[in-house]
Amino acid sequence: METRVHSSKQEVVISPDSATVLIGERINPTGKKLLAAALVERDMSRVRKLAESQIADGAAMLDVNVGAAGVNEVEVLPMAVKAVMEVTDVPLCIDSANAQALRAALQVYPGKALINSVNGEEASLKRVLPLVKEFGAAVIGLTMDDSGIPCDASSRLAIAHKIVARAEELGIPREDVLIDCLAMAVSADMTAAQVTLESIRRVRAELGANMTLGASNVSFGLPDREAINDIFLAMTITAGVNAPIVNPGSSHKAILISDLLLGHDEFGMNYVTYFRSQNKGA
Amino acid sequence: METRVHSSKQEVVISPDSATVLIGERINPTGKKLLAAALVERDMSRVRKLAESQIADGAAMLDVNVGAAGVNEVEVLPMAVKAVMEVTDVPLCIDSANAQALRAALQVYPGKALINSVNGEEASLKRVLPLVKEFGAAVIGLTMDDSGIPCDASSRLAIAHKIVARAEELGIPREDVLIDCLAMAVSADMTAAQVTLESIRRVRAELGANMTLGASNVSFGLPDREAINDIFLAMTITAGVNAPIVNPGSSHKAILISDLLLGHDEFGMNYVTYFRSQNKGA
Repeated sequence: METRVHSSKQEVVISPDSATVLIGERINPTGKKLLAAALVERDMSRVRKLAESQIADGAAMLDVNVGAAGVNEVEVLPMAVKAVMEVTDVPLCIDSANAQALRAALQVYPGKALINSVNGEEASLKRVLPLVKEFGAAVIGLTMDDSGIPCDASSRLAIAHKIVARAEELGIPREDVLIDCLAMAVSADMTAAQVTLESIRRVRAELGANMTLGASNVSFGLPDREAINDIFLAMTITAGVNAPIVNPGSSHKAILISDLLLGHDEFGMNYVTYFRSQNKGA
Repeated sequence: METRVHSSKQEVVISPDSATVLIGERINPTGKKLLAAALVERDMSRVRKLAESQIADGAAMLDVNVGAAGVNEVEVLPMAVKAVMEVTDVPLCIDSANAQALRAALQVYPGKALINSVNGEEASLKRVLPLVKEFGAAVIGLTMDDSGIPCDASSRLAIAHKIVARAEELGIPREDVLIDCLAMAVSADMTAAQVTLESIRRVRAELGANMTLGASNVSFGLPDREAINDIFLAMTITAGVNAPIVNPGSSHKAILISDLLLGHDEFGMNYVTYFRSQNKGA
């Protein structure tokens, strides 16, 4: 199953048979005071810089999120989308909980975007899926609903099935729904990573859908989070995630090695090219 | 299924429900000229040092191999086993292609050893399995035979089934056979890692056997081998390997993180303890 998204100039194909698509997570003011302040001031210079640095670090798509106190998302999200498009041609993942902000951003985006996100709540399905249909976009479906994030894989699967079914009822093809099985902190719940891995395997087997994941939650509260995130990414990619949302600066190498081992990097060219670029002049 | 091995003082339990058992690979003269020369001279000081350093780095068992040109294994293997027992109480994995050397070493080992190894060749089965039975040992079964190492998982599985069946015919219980699905260089064959992973998953599903793996071959010929080995180890542990043979100095961290994510490290205690020991005074 292939999910295709594009900007006006570049297409990206997400599929179990292709190399992993790295979606850059860093244009997001959560935990970034300076970015949040810049967005309040509608100063897009930091957004542009984060776009450029993530592309240099290997991102094939960029997530754009401007949600912070004091930011009018309906006005600022389209500004940020335009700012990113000034410096890169990669397809974008437009990220907001505000449907009006999503609509405003989709209106200025001249391609097929990935919308982040819908979930199993009735209100979310009714708010977001019609936008996906209207703009011919793809969408991320989070395996959570009114009751929160289920602790077991079967309940997450039920939500994934529901989102895909509701999308198909509206004429949105299954390949345009990327499921996110959600990673939780293993420090808070010893089974958290296992439940996510089992959910991923079952989505691949039962729905065949492509999958994203914001993997870094898994290491919350533990030392050397990047090392944990790398190992978890490798496990989730093996299980079926093919478009994780990550910090490309820290995760690119683990993703390239995973692709190499899973047969998605012919002759190891991507890995060796990366290795050489990192060791230039060393 | 539990595989239990022991020295005269320590027992190690290998099971899918327990933390990964790290078997130290470094007492092996292959590629180590100074160790090979010392073994020719019957000087055991290097063997003792390699035992101590691997225990410090997290090994729960040690592989002992003295195969090198000019070394009389029948005499030197028992000497090496005794030397290792002088400095550590961990159970040993006695490693030789020479059945007489295995016998001589088993005679001086006062516990239940792991024998490395038998394979699917008729001659190997006839030579090694009676020793396993006679000494009440456990054994590693390599998924290769007269025709070499099969390129596909189904043929490796057939060999694993054969080894287990032949062991059971002799009264060696299945839990005392650790299967090694064999890792080959991904630089030579793009599908090599995938075939190993599929074989591991099928051994877990079809035989339920515990598994070892010499994982480091996978990165042969590629830059930054340790990074590749770490990611591959995480994938193989997720698939079912629970007693890999590795260099503990380089692989301990990736194994601890894998255990943490797979629910085999309650409250992350092993990982956090390791992290603190590595960062003392930093």
